[in-house]
Amino acid sequence: MTDPKFFQRQGPLTLARIAEIAGGTIAATDRPDQEFSDVAALDTAGPDDVSFLDNRKYVDQLAETQAGACILAQEMAEVAPEGVALIVCDKPYMGYARVAQAFYPRPRTIAGIHPAAVIHSSAEVDDSASIAAGAVIEAGAKIGARTSIGANSVIGAGVEIGEDCEIGPCASLSHCLVGSRVRLYAGVRIGQDGFGFAFDAAGHVRVPQLGRVIIDDDVEIGANSTIDRGAGPDTMIGKGAMIDNLVQIAHNVQVGQGAVIIAQAGVAGSTSLGRWSVLAAQAGVAGHLVVGDGARVGAQAGVMRDVPPGNDVLGSPAMQARAFWRQMSHLAKLGRGQERPKQTQETNTETEKT
Amino acid sequence: MTDPKFFQRQGPLTLARIAEIAGGTIAATDRPDQEFSDVAALDTAGPDDVSFLDNRKYVDQLAETQAGACILAQEMAEVAPEGVALIVCDKPYMGYARVAQAFYPRPRTIAGIHPAAVIHSSAEVDDSASIAAGAVIEAGAKIGARTSIGANSVIGAGVEIGEDCEIGPCASLSHCLVGSRVRLYAGVRIGQDGFGFAFDAAGHVRVPQLGRVIIDDDVEIGANSTIDRGAGPDTMIGKGAMIDNLVQIAHNVQVGQGAVIIAQAGVAGSTSLGRWSVLAAQAGVAGHLVVGDGARVGAQAGVMRDVPPGNDVLGSPAMQARAFWRQMSHLAKLGRGQERPKQTQETNTETEKT
Amino acid sequence: MTDPKFFQRQGPLTLARIAEIAGGTIAATDRPDQEFSDVAALDTAGPDDVSFLDNRKYVDQLAETQAGACILAQEMAEVAPEGVALIVCDKPYMGYARVAQAFYPRPRTIAGIHPAAVIHSSAEVDDSASIAAGAVIEAGAKIGARTSIGANSVIGAGVEIGEDCEIGPCASLSHCLVGSRVRLYAGVRIGQDGFGFAFDAAGHVRVPQLGRVIIDDDVEIGANSTIDRGAGPDTMIGKGAMIDNLVQIAHNVQVGQGAVIIAQAGVAGSTSLGRWSVLAAQAGVAGHLVVGDGARVGAQAGVMRDVPPGNDVLGSPAMQARAFWRQMSHLAKLGRGQERPKQTQETNTETEKT
Repeated sequence: MTDPKFFQRQGPLTLARIAEIAGGTIAATDRPDQEFSDVAALDTAGPDDVSFLDNRKYVDQLAETQAGACILAQEMAEVAPEGVALIVCDKPYMGYARVAQAFYPRPRTIAGIHPAAVIHSSAEVDDSASIAAGAVIEAGAKIGARTSIGANSVIGAGVEIGEDCEIGPCASLSHCLVGSRVRLYAGVRIGQDGFGFAFDAAGHVRVPQLGRVIIDDDVEIGANSTIDRGAGPDTMIGKGAMIDNLVQIAHNVQVGQGAVIIAQAGVAGSTSLGRWSVLAAQAGVAGHLVVGDGARVGAQAGVMRDVPPGNDVLGSPAMQARAFWRQMSHLAKLGRGQERPKQTQETNTETEKT
Repeated sequence: MTDPKFFQRQGPLTLARIAEIAGGTIAATDRPDQEFSDVAALDTAGPDDVSFLDNRKYVDQLAETQAGACILAQEMAEVAPEGVALIVCDKPYMGYARVAQAFYPRPRTIAGIHPAAVIHSSAEVDDSASIAAGAVIEAGAKIGARTSIGANSVIGAGVEIGEDCEIGPCASLSHCLVGSRVRLYAGVRIGQDGFGFAFDAAGHVRVPQLGRVIIDDDVEIGANSTIDRGAGPDTMIGKGAMIDNLVQIAHNVQVGQGAVIIAQAGVAGSTSLGRWSVLAAQAGVAGHLVVGDGARVGAQAGVMRDVPPGNDVLGSPAMQARAFWRQMSHLAKLGRGQERPKQTQETNTETEKT
Repeated sequence: MTDPKFFQRQGPLTLARIAEIAGGTIAATDRPDQEFSDVAALDTAGPDDVSFLDNRKYVDQLAETQAGACILAQEMAEVAPEGVALIVCDKPYMGYARVAQAFYPRPRTIAGIHPAAVIHSSAEVDDSASIAAGAVIEAGAKIGARTSIGANSVIGAGVEIGEDCEIGPCASLSHCLVGSRVRLYAGVRIGQDGFGFAFDAAGHVRVPQLGRVIIDDDVEIGANSTIDRGAGPDTMIGKGAMIDNLVQIAHNVQVGQGAVIIAQAGVAGSTSLGRWSVLAAQAGVAGHLVVGDGARVGAQAGVMRDVPPGNDVLGSPAMQARAFWRQMSHLAKLGRGQERPKQTQETNTETEKT
């Protein structure tokens, strides 16, 4: 059960309605009108809860679950214990996401400007927007309908934010244009100067950073992540891109539509990430590269060359995933002495010498 | 000498009292009543200062130190120059820590709410707590006795913080319960949504994150670190865990009692770190894994499998430390040609040249 | 063209004046009095714009550029299309930096304290300084001439900041002394406790961190980076050092003059980075080491030993760049079966079987 201090629940919902929301079909029950009051994980759910199974790692939990209903894939349906109503879905996690959103819809923005917020006289704040205590909205900034600005955030001069956005507390934005339905989490830094200077032993010389950050609709950017503005061109974050915490995006980077960047990854200047590409945690991509559409860069990988569309790369420096695992396998054998390279190699050498 | 602008010193203390605080025994002096006024590093200490030696790397500094007294281990006592009073300790660094705390006790919290703080009418702030300028305490939050909230921090709705805690400036907390004697440094982000969504090319779908962050007593979390709240279960930070700067802790992670996580390390979702385990700097642990009690993960390691209790792992992907060093050694030989592939290659080259 | 919402342009400037600023000589034109109104990238520049070529990767763009003038090196001059006025420079990027600064000088600080700033009565703020809304200046702090403090930043007790500095929004400083012409970006954390404690299963014991952070003139520190104060000695950031976003600098670290530290890199305690050394993105340096003057540490490298002056190191653990590439080459051959261990192994296996 969720903590009522933090979450407001809707419902109850009937099984039929839940299946409809999940985009699935009911099985293993003749009670489509049974009501459910909450969602929960398999190991904590009770008879009034809807749960889900997406990761096979947790299939043992399914066998022992007390959940009243479970959203899962067809091939898992047989493993479910009797008495659990099933909602069979092609994409169980997607189904669960939609059901959980139905029980826990995002709270509506409560319009109004807190008296302790500071709004410049030339800023334009929509009447339906919410500005929290301590937020600072600088000259010429524009805040769209139903957008909420978190406490102690700073919206810099000229920044424009669309509709239905949510800006977390202690974030700061400058030199950027933000679309609609964008969520920027606590402590996000958008639009500061990129790291551009001419290296010189007599003293490095700053290169003015004259671009902006353009954030398209439906983007999310995680806590304490940093997105620098362009040096001349703009830094672009494509529609629906999902960026996790502590991620670094350098100047001029183009992040494609729907791209996913996981925590502590970084992208160097002028690099382009393709649509629906994935950059796993702590990975890095060097500057002036192209990572193709749908490419996937593994955790901690270090990309130093272009990655063709759809390719998976691993390692530092990064290579095709298959080549990486082959190298790891050989290295492991070397380490275990199973490749006897010293001995066999000597033999080979001998052979070649003779 | 410390800068009086920033530090207030107590004392002086006699050698006998210092030895008692350090949990050590006096040697190489017949003046237990000698007074000392400060602590200092071996290379800067003077005759009124107490210093310490813990890292053998600095043993040369001991030979030349001007310190009046030194806390050290028995086996180092012979290296100390004459005229330096010695305090012999099993754990010299621990002894030094306690002595330094005696000279520099943490400043007492000065009770009161700054007039520029913003406290919601439904929040409960203990009379002995300290709320700095610009801090925002939202609806229903509770702040315990002698806890201080830094300037421009944001304590979200419903958050509960125990006694004797110290929250740095510009931090933000939501959806969390915090124990006592907890220190959260500047810019820490606690309790924001975890990175959970159903991946879909038609647009990723957010999965509501319905858990909390539970922080036990005596935890420290470094500057700009991010701890996401659970997706359903809670994210848990165990008693006395020490977390450094810029660390990422994803949703549902369980950090064990006394675990140590060093700067820029990250832990992916639903992973559990054992008690007294250590995650060194820039290391990463993948999701849904178990790192055992007392296990140690080396700097920049990438953990992709469970780590048994007490094991040391290195490398990316991580393996047993011994296996890693063996692989590195073989690889180095390969590189130097000592495993003779270089030679063979040279032979080949020769062949090609001729 | 830059967005006038965010950037104010000076000019126009004659070609002769631009060449003088760039420190270059005019070629391929007989019109030194031609006026130019802006700077732009090669692929977007028009006839009134000055562009530049520094990275050979973009030489194709030079051939097709519509720019009126281009700053470039002598050896590139021949590739330029006719009709483009040339400014030939030894260091084209440096030349461009100076020209761009001429068109876009940094906005002058507008003196004044915003009524929503909170200044302690014992703080000293120069009359020409600018303090933004929500900034908090604590007891005894000193802010120099023409220095600007961003919105919702916190300048801790006793902190001293020199002249012509720029502190971004939401930054926090404590226990530090800052020189002149220093830029600290949004969300920077300076001067919090270092990560120092005596490890003990009965509960770790904090070691008081009694040093400061000393930041010399002309330093830049990127968004959300963290610089801990010294444990006893001071943490020092040398003159003109350039530090990118999300960088971690631990207690007692010495960063040499002009050193460059790129995004998400980290330096562990008591390590010294030489003058003009470079730490590339996501690299890490272990504690108590010396990285020599002019040494370069590659992206994602993990330094575990001292690095001699001028050396380049790569890999984790880091080694000389040549040795690293040699190892990578051997490993690649192993992976492709070109070093024959696979074959030999099969032979061995067969042998063992028989």
